[in-house]
Amino acid sequence: MGQEGGGTGGQGVVFTEVGPRDGFQNLKETLPTADKLAVIEGLLATGVDCVEVTSFVSPAWVPQLADAEAVCRALDPARLRDRVRVLVPNRRGLERALAAGVGHVLVTIGVTDGFNRRNVNRSVDQSLGQLGEIVAAAEGAVDVSLSVAFGCPFEGAVAPARTAALARACLDAGAAEVGLADTIGVADPAQVRALLGAVVSAGVPLDRISLHLHDTRGMGLANVLAGWEAGVRRFEGSVGGIGGCPFSPRATGNVCSEDLLHLLARMGAGISADLGRYCQVATQVAALLDRELPGRLHRAGLWDGRLLSEAPAG
Amino acid sequence: MGQEGGGTGGQGVVFTEVGPRDGFQNLKETLPTADKLAVIEGLLATGVDCVEVTSFVSPAWVPQLADAEAVCRALDPARLRDRVRVLVPNRRGLERALAAGVGHVLVTIGVTDGFNRRNVNRSVDQSLGQLGEIVAAAEGAVDVSLSVAFGCPFEGAVAPARTAALARACLDAGAAEVGLADTIGVADPAQVRALLGAVVSAGVPLDRISLHLHDTRGMGLANVLAGWEAGVRRFEGSVGGIGGCPFSPRATGNVCSEDLLHLLARMGAGISADLGRYCQVATQVAALLDRELPGRLHRAGLWDGRLLSEAPAG
Repeated sequence: MGQEGGGTGGQGVVFTEVGPRDGFQNLKETLPTADKLAVIEGLLATGVDCVEVTSFVSPAWVPQLADAEAVCRALDPARLRDRVRVLVPNRRGLERALAAGVGHVLVTIGVTDGFNRRNVNRSVDQSLGQLGEIVAAAEGAVDVSLSVAFGCPFEGAVAPARTAALARACLDAGAAEVGLADTIGVADPAQVRALLGAVVSAGVPLDRISLHLHDTRGMGLANVLAGWEAGVRRFEGSVGGIGGCPFSPRATGNVCSEDLLHLLARMGAGISADLGRYCQVATQVAALLDRELPGRLHRAGLWDGRLLSEAPAG
Repeated sequence: MGQEGGGTGGQGVVFTEVGPRDGFQNLKETLPTADKLAVIEGLLATGVDCVEVTSFVSPAWVPQLADAEAVCRALDPARLRDRVRVLVPNRRGLERALAAGVGHVLVTIGVTDGFNRRNVNRSVDQSLGQLGEIVAAAEGAVDVSLSVAFGCPFEGAVAPARTAALARACLDAGAAEVGLADTIGVADPAQVRALLGAVVSAGVPLDRISLHLHDTRGMGLANVLAGWEAGVRRFEGSVGGIGGCPFSPRATGNVCSEDLLHLLARMGAGISADLGRYCQVATQVAALLDRELPGRLHRAGLWDGRLLSEAPAG
């Protein structure tokens, strides 16, 4: 499980920044390793609890992350141990991660066979079996992210009971944290509440559940609000909202980290990251990619209660 | 008050599309009248309850809307009477609107003197006095929008009691609907709930309150969710999220209409507009403006529970 953030008891949020993995892997371009490292160092300097820095997937599948070893080896070993997570698709990926000095890993499992087979060429049951092997071989926490937990592009609507049973099975297999991922961005707040209710009823404690939401249809932060108010304290997002949705080429992907953290802070959450610094990293990423990012806060700026301006009213 | 939409009793939403006014007036470019009319006709064809088509403000102040008469006169008189609203800044504006055949008007009043003086060169009390005159002279419903109801760029934080007292005073002066406008996009869901509580406590019934929210800092739809669950049934937004924030030149402005309506429909609201058609209008506006718009749904598309695709998983 990710280490505890600078939260304030029951209001403290543990946030994992996934931009360097989920964002960069969905870009058309491949960023130079040095640029990635500048972004990752900037993210770590915000104070954010955890940064998912890369994926030890085959470079043939995701050439954007072919420099996974180089990225990890360039990071400070203490940070690598305490505040970094990497995605590993299989045992081979875990071995590469361990060799690169990373102990905290994420395994993704699609809730439907249709999605999981296309993603990792295994049935859900086979992935669950492999999860046990990875937990046994790992040297740190193994988190699981359940892809298409709210809806699948190949099998359609997903019953909450199905996701809930798999979440419980992952916990039983040794997962530290179970993430509910809205991979294609179809969740709504009512569905977030319903799924959380089902997962908790299946015996997964709220403090082991993470929400990985997308803003594909604009409901990302409304879903975050619903999750927060239902008691979820673990969230993921990407800086500036970078990344896309492979199933909707023109659409937005991950919820924007700093927009999410700003919302939660305004709702009384304890957050570890400095929002001003986060906005600076988003601005830096926009400059590296030379385009406007989906995130809002880094463009508007934090409001201090007194924004003087002489512009006409809107 | 705007006419009732095709709602379903207590779950029916009355939605006013403000893109042709609040969106177009905040664009750098001025659209040709024929393009505006194509967009307005497209919006009316979605079935949306009401479209705010222009503002009878001085062309010297807002050259983008200098064709207000031409826009109104080109519209079908029955639609102009039943499903159109225009902004009028003063008595002169009202006279122009009446001459153009529009009965349903909107008056904006800033909650702070600092904002209101810069916007219309009057104190809040002077604007309130003028509201009574406009109500007396109007031939239809007079709605009021309270600008900077959640925070002011010149006076900072705004106490809920202050906005609530003004909302009640507007009702007493004959306003049909009182809108709470987050003009600079600083509201959060807790603040939405607090302000609604104060306004209702001041004697303004929930069914006379409208929310006009901006997505400047990404919380637009989270705030809509909070308002909806607090019982608000009147909302405003702009197609595609067009428009900006005069106080944050690079920032997003109004919440996106079709994203908002999609959220509410998913939460069980009865909406009058067809979402597929709304997305088509947003796509049309993006083409007219030749740029990507902030709205999400028109790019991702509605999800029918089965989006087949062979793309790799994210």
